[in-house]
Amino acid sequence: MDSNNERLTKMRHSASHIMAEAVLSLFPEAKFAIGPAIENGFYYDFDLPRSLTPEDLAGVEQKMRDIIAADEPFRHEEASKEEARTLFATQPFKLELIDDIEGDKVSIYGQGSFVDLCAGPHVERTGEVKAFKLTSVAGAYWRGDERRPMLQRIYGALFETQAELDDYLHRLEDAAQRDHRRLGRELDLFSFHEEYGPGLAYWHPKGARVRNIIEDFWRKEHYRAGYELILTPHIGKAALWETSGHLDFYRENMYSPMQVDEQDYYIKPMNCPFHIQIYSSRTRSYRELPIRLAEMATVYRYERSGVLHGLLRVRGFTQDDAHIFCRPDQVEDEIGRALDLMTVFLKAFGFADYRVYLATAPDKSTGSPEDWQMAEDVLRSACHARGLDYSLDLGGGVFYGPKIDVKLLDVLGREWQCTTVQFDFNLPERFGITYVGEDGREHRPFMVHRTLLGSVERFMGVLIEHYAGAFPLWLAPVQAMVVPIADRHVEYGRGVAEALRQEDIRVEVDDRNERMNAKIRDAQLQKVPYMLVVGDKEAEAGTVNVRLRSGENIGAISVAELLARVQREIDEKI
Amino acid sequence: MDSNNERLTKMRHSASHIMAEAVLSLFPEAKFAIGPAIENGFYYDFDLPRSLTPEDLAGVEQKMRDIIAADEPFRHEEASKEEARTLFATQPFKLELIDDIEGDKVSIYGQGSFVDLCAGPHVERTGEVKAFKLTSVAGAYWRGDERRPMLQRIYGALFETQAELDDYLHRLEDAAQRDHRRLGRELDLFSFHEEYGPGLAYWHPKGARVRNIIEDFWRKEHYRAGYELILTPHIGKAALWETSGHLDFYRENMYSPMQVDEQDYYIKPMNCPFHIQIYSSRTRSYRELPIRLAEMATVYRYERSGVLHGLLRVRGFTQDDAHIFCRPDQVEDEIGRALDLMTVFLKAFGFADYRVYLATAPDKSTGSPEDWQMAEDVLRSACHARGLDYSLDLGGGVFYGPKIDVKLLDVLGREWQCTTVQFDFNLPERFGITYVGEDGREHRPFMVHRTLLGSVERFMGVLIEHYAGAFPLWLAPVQAMVVPIADRHVEYGRGVAEALRQEDIRVEVDDRNERMNAKIRDAQLQKVPYMLVVGDKEAEAGTVNVRLRSGENIGAISVAELLARVQREIDEKI
Repeated sequence: MDSNNERLTKMRHSASHIMAEAVLSLFPEAKFAIGPAIENGFYYDFDLPRSLTPEDLAGVEQKMRDIIAADEPFRHEEASKEEARTLFATQPFKLELIDDIEGDKVSIYGQGSFVDLCAGPHVERTGEVKAFKLTSVAGAYWRGDERRPMLQRIYGALFETQAELDDYLHRLEDAAQRDHRRLGRELDLFSFHEEYGPGLAYWHPKGARVRNIIEDFWRKEHYRAGYELILTPHIGKAALWETSGHLDFYRENMYSPMQVDEQDYYIKPMNCPFHIQIYSSRTRSYRELPIRLAEMATVYRYERSGVLHGLLRVRGFTQDDAHIFCRPDQVEDEIGRALDLMTVFLKAFGFADYRVYLATAPDKSTGSPEDWQMAEDVLRSACHARGLDYSLDLGGGVFYGPKIDVKLLDVLGREWQCTTVQFDFNLPERFGITYVGEDGREHRPFMVHRTLLGSVERFMGVLIEHYAGAFPLWLAPVQAMVVPIADRHVEYGRGVAEALRQEDIRVEVDDRNERMNAKIRDAQLQKVPYMLVVGDKEAEAGTVNVRLRSGENIGAISVAELLARVQREIDEKI
Repeated sequence: MDSNNERLTKMRHSASHIMAEAVLSLFPEAKFAIGPAIENGFYYDFDLPRSLTPEDLAGVEQKMRDIIAADEPFRHEEASKEEARTLFATQPFKLELIDDIEGDKVSIYGQGSFVDLCAGPHVERTGEVKAFKLTSVAGAYWRGDERRPMLQRIYGALFETQAELDDYLHRLEDAAQRDHRRLGRELDLFSFHEEYGPGLAYWHPKGARVRNIIEDFWRKEHYRAGYELILTPHIGKAALWETSGHLDFYRENMYSPMQVDEQDYYIKPMNCPFHIQIYSSRTRSYRELPIRLAEMATVYRYERSGVLHGLLRVRGFTQDDAHIFCRPDQVEDEIGRALDLMTVFLKAFGFADYRVYLATAPDKSTGSPEDWQMAEDVLRSACHARGLDYSLDLGGGVFYGPKIDVKLLDVLGREWQCTTVQFDFNLPERFGITYVGEDGREHRPFMVHRTLLGSVERFMGVLIEHYAGAFPLWLAPVQAMVVPIADRHVEYGRGVAEALRQEDIRVEVDDRNERMNAKIRDAQLQKVPYMLVVGDKEAEAGTVNVRLRSGENIGAISVAELLARVQREIDEKI
């Protein structure tokens, strides 16, 4: 952390204390919990007599500005636990925190009439706190535990300069406009039905259309890259998960079992054990390797309901999963091929930037040190060979092997977990899988887990936010909307649509009895790439008047010209 | 049953007694259970000191022929239960059957030294029993109850003439050759893993390839036919199944619940409640109807392990499911369109023959008599309009509405349940779904369930048996195998393969160091439609020497000619 960052962190932390002072002055009965500095700002959690309104936030913000203007000094002192308990006698959260502190001394910071249990550090005076703004209120359980009270968390943004703050707030506003949950509703892409199970996405026709395009593309590229696609069940007997070890090391993420014929079955949180069954359904020869088994497979994992977040964090999701079984002499090439295929996908979906992390052996791990060394070397050299810069994530590997994680950067610069390529030294042992080598003896193959998109659900969420719902033409659920100016142009419009449909263009005709401008506005709100206005002139000349969702007017062109243009854009995925 | 059939049934039943006599003479300690006439023959169940061998069957058959040659009369008498108990004192199964008979009298048939508890009827003398053959032995639980002892069931085939018997045995042999479980292994299409859950299919690369082709075709045709594709979760909270009523009327087919956050979730046996959520996720106008929501969705249903049978009866299967929500004035057209789409599919998959059944109101049903009358009329007239002959299945409808069931006939003349189109008067009420009519008021839409293939798993099983694994070109997982005569032709062969791959032909090169004939034999065993032999002459002339899996030799043609031929066959789905 450089000193600039340290200073900013101190400012943010101090702002959280100033906010607490302001809230207590407005709500003297408030109980306050904790208030740290976070990325881009700070928060504080309060137990308040009522839900805060936007007006309350404005009041708190004004009060904070008064405290900053007063330029009070931050005081620091140590106290015994006894003294602290007296000081915070009316603050139950603080009392609980005091109990948890080791030793007898506690650290206390104060400004003006406010004191807080706090290890610091802080700026010298309240006047040093710079450009800030309170941004939102959200619910948060005390200590993140859903069995404890729900508190109100007030978030603030804080930067050194107003320009930086404005820039951040602008990005926040932009992110809100791009929120995939909101766009999911507005564009009728998907829904969640809490009452029938939170975290389970229902894909509506337009969302499923995009998913189907993605999955078709995925299948085609995987076949092309020498993968073999398979399909496996969603449930398996306890015996499968015992052998795989998931019941030992992954049970907390698995749903409880269901009984069939008095036997326990689990819905799958992972596909690996199933793919291994197909690998080992017959004897494999060294000549057959590498075997690359891939599946678009829906898995179910337990996530606490508090952390569920639209499509980005769900309980059921579809992994674009693959397992590569190969010989030692093939593994570097295979890692490289997986990375190559990743770049095909990221490029196709319009993500130019991404960050690569190489995660090495954690403290506890399976597999020999030699295997780990070899595997880490292989990952490293596969990255080098492709000119991929990577950061080391020391000790960040899974217990069963090292991995490459790739996080893509969206248009707002946010990081999203995407591709992962992982060695696995565990499952091949557990299931005892082998191949017959050139020497006629049995050998253990290497097994590499790999997903390129990660979760299709999350990837769709990221795509929606990246494009603010305006999918590139090849992904757009509706690619063109024919807008007849008057009823007498509907027939011509339908003919145009039919001609486009013949070429597999996804086109609709807005034959509602509405004004042209209303139809164009609606198509634009639905982020339809092409609006094709047809009136007398167009019908006579056999043309369409093309308007783009950007607002740009292309003017009248023939249907053939339009098709050529559209086909080129689809082919180039732009 | 005509008198001819009556006579045949009597003969078959008598043959089962003759078989029992033969078995008892060879195994005096045998306990015999029941032995009815069945379609094509007869069986008898025995508890024997050891498993029967094929040699035993030959011995039993010879003994039967002796009994028939002796031309013994069949005797019939009545006895008191007391007398019967003495007669069958050493036969525990017979004693149990005697206990279950009402009244005090039991009917007894005998021939030679053999007597059996039996209601008859029988032929007059053993000599009347005609052409028969013992065909197999299988395990069968006493009274079909898996908690009772497992017995050995000996099956026999019996017909009036040797010609009929031979014809039947020939068809049986043909069916065995076509058994999809055997072909599934030989062609490496799929596997089951009993130890990790019976009735759950694992699709290997080649099987998944065929499924993917089927599903791609299905999606394309559904989009073309105005369906909207959706995707829904595999699990739902108990509340969903309570509202839908499945927990009341379908629980025995559902797996037990799993717990998430202390709530019961069920893996889905049906998709309807999920599709309804998407329908009712917003207000629907009469102008939007019909809405046709379709999904290739995997469901899980409980089947007793005893009835599981390869892909034909499984515990997890993928329905090509759709729900059509429409206005009363649209419903006949919608039923008709569903039947039209069915004919597209049956034709594409090469099923020329099928039987249509119209199932009417059962004793207990929901929905008004007027609705039932209307719905049955609509189904009837949709069949009439398409010139579909149908049989009435009186009272065979589901409690929630009448339906059309279509059973396709495979190349052996066997019937397979395929398409079903069902009215549902129940779920729209239960979920209270509506649309806003032209009058501005809320109306209840009609809901039609419909599946064309039924279960993709079963359909694949039927396809495999229908084609004996030799899929038509458009479905074949490998469409062409390039067979280089010697190593020096491998390179040219790879070039040919690449040229075909460019046109999306699924082609492999057999570059093993094997003789040409061995390669051709293997490709033929794998039922690859096109074998492309390449040697010096072909490499020089830029041709391939084409051999079909039928054995037919096309001779040398250019790659361009081959492509034209292959493309035409694919397009025409022949």
